[in-house]
Amino acid sequence: MNIAIDMMGGDFAPAEAVKGVQLFLSGQDASTPPDPSRSSVSPVPGLFLIGDEAQIHPLLVQHEIDAKSVSVVHAPEVIGMNEHPTKALKEKQQSSIAVGFQLLASGKTDAFISAGNTGAMLVGAVYSIKPLEGVLRPTISTIIPKDSGAPGLLLDVGLNADCKPEHLNQFALLGSMYSQYISGIENPRVALLNLGEEEGKGNLLAQAAYPLLKENKEIRFIGNIEGRDILKDKADVMVCDGFTGNIILKMAESIYEITRSKSIQHDYLDQFNFENYGGTPVLGVSSPVIIGHGISHGKAFANMIRLAVKMIDADLMKKMKSRFENIR
Amino acid sequence: MNIAIDMMGGDFAPAEAVKGVQLFLSGQDASTPPDPSRSSVSPVPGLFLIGDEAQIHPLLVQHEIDAKSVSVVHAPEVIGMNEHPTKALKEKQQSSIAVGFQLLASGKTDAFISAGNTGAMLVGAVYSIKPLEGVLRPTISTIIPKDSGAPGLLLDVGLNADCKPEHLNQFALLGSMYSQYISGIENPRVALLNLGEEEGKGNLLAQAAYPLLKENKEIRFIGNIEGRDILKDKADVMVCDGFTGNIILKMAESIYEITRSKSIQHDYLDQFNFENYGGTPVLGVSSPVIIGHGISHGKAFANMIRLAVKMIDADLMKKMKSRFENIR
Repeated sequence: MNIAIDMMGGDFAPAEAVKGVQLFLSGQDASTPPDPSRSSVSPVPGLFLIGDEAQIHPLLVQHEIDAKSVSVVHAPEVIGMNEHPTKALKEKQQSSIAVGFQLLASGKTDAFISAGNTGAMLVGAVYSIKPLEGVLRPTISTIIPKDSGAPGLLLDVGLNADCKPEHLNQFALLGSMYSQYISGIENPRVALLNLGEEEGKGNLLAQAAYPLLKENKEIRFIGNIEGRDILKDKADVMVCDGFTGNIILKMAESIYEITRSKSIQHDYLDQFNFENYGGTPVLGVSSPVIIGHGISHGKAFANMIRLAVKMIDADLMKKMKSRFENIR
Repeated sequence: MNIAIDMMGGDFAPAEAVKGVQLFLSGQDASTPPDPSRSSVSPVPGLFLIGDEAQIHPLLVQHEIDAKSVSVVHAPEVIGMNEHPTKALKEKQQSSIAVGFQLLASGKTDAFISAGNTGAMLVGAVYSIKPLEGVLRPTISTIIPKDSGAPGLLLDVGLNADCKPEHLNQFALLGSMYSQYISGIENPRVALLNLGEEEGKGNLLAQAAYPLLKENKEIRFIGNIEGRDILKDKADVMVCDGFTGNIILKMAESIYEITRSKSIQHDYLDQFNFENYGGTPVLGVSSPVIIGHGISHGKAFANMIRLAVKMIDADLMKKMKSRFENIR
């Protein structure tokens, strides 16, 4: 199992990325303890650290990371946070993001993680490694902590600003599988995010998506949920267009930031710290691609590596592939 | 100044509505102290309490409300919370909501308040008292408390699930005027809620609305804001379609409910208690119509009456009317 990490992505690169690698390798700060019931213990993954060697090496020494425990892949270029994604990815073939996708596409690595230019990561995910056959639109999701502590999944959170009903129907299946195999929720409850509970409510998109979801035998559809239910333990998977989802995701993140700035302390509020979840996986593509927040610190990087391990371990992309093949 | 209140609307009717009247008349529990700088002190409004006399009278006695200080208007019928709005409003001409709109349309009252069937209230607002000339779509807004304590205004929050760019552009002006004349914010900053800050970002609706807002000389447009900015003091008026707005409104309300259930106490969180704001005014129609939450208690009713007084005092509807006339 090989995982590539863009060391140059994010506002605090490469220092926080290296710190994340150190946290991961040392097993510190893991949010979930090792599961003793698991029959197979995954081997330590090979970590490919992509970026400027001259910057990375001293940081490895500083963080006491054994040079033999990782592979540094030199990439002299960086795609800036505000560069045009498609253009930058095309022109900067030696950038850490471009090199990461080359490694992933060639099969040298099994997952790719970056907290860099989100647009470039999305373009790379969709064009370098391609959507799974039958998937109309890859999607990105986020964990929304429930009041019960359960990990709700919301998707799409911004990759698809405008959606068609069939897209939402596919997001429902992709989210349902993620919830089952990664969050460990058996037979997850899937809901359509809407402005009312009753069937027939909603904007044109939600009204048209409802019957598709209701007919979808691959998921356990429980109907509409409202905004008041997002933070409650009513559904495990919540489906919406990427415009709405993106606004909810960022509003949820701001709850943590604001309450912290006001010194309002509570375990429940701590759950809104996105660093706990690490990053946003792209779903519906053939290999795990995890996109981190620009302001990711070490903890977020370590959790992104752990998430990649989980996704590879669960063989999630292959399971999604075969499910979509069977539907057609 | 005459204000009509539907005593039969809401889950705790008529008891909590009567309690609200009592709170208002006694001046208890007012969230804002009287403003000494105001040159004209508004007279005590005439309150028209619409509903079943047999139920209302004993409650007036119980709450020690002088029967001479209010006018009870008997309405033997009630529109249930789950009845079909248009049908119920047509068939139940003697319902408290229908009678309320009759009083408003005839000019006998200057505002109408109800925590009853939201759909019936919206239908009544749009068809009994009509939109202002030039207003394409009436809208409903909500106060979203900012981290600074300032009252942000979000609209539309559910009346218009699907919107066109010109609708958002009109919501911007209606919201801007509400913010100025009711919230007392001079030259309010108006923003488009979007998934990114840069011009050109967004779904098709937001992309098309941006240039209209930018060109709109009637408002102070400051550009896009993201989900992370909703709870921050970045814009005074936040414009979006009613699907997105409804989900945000209900999610914001749930923050109060959840943190309260977990005994997380803080003044900041208390601001999310919708009862502080009372209800949602319909904007773009010729008279003040305020729609309350089904679970409104006395405090919410009292604040709705106060809001109606403020809207009448400010002559808001007339100001909106003349502004829209001048634009054309």
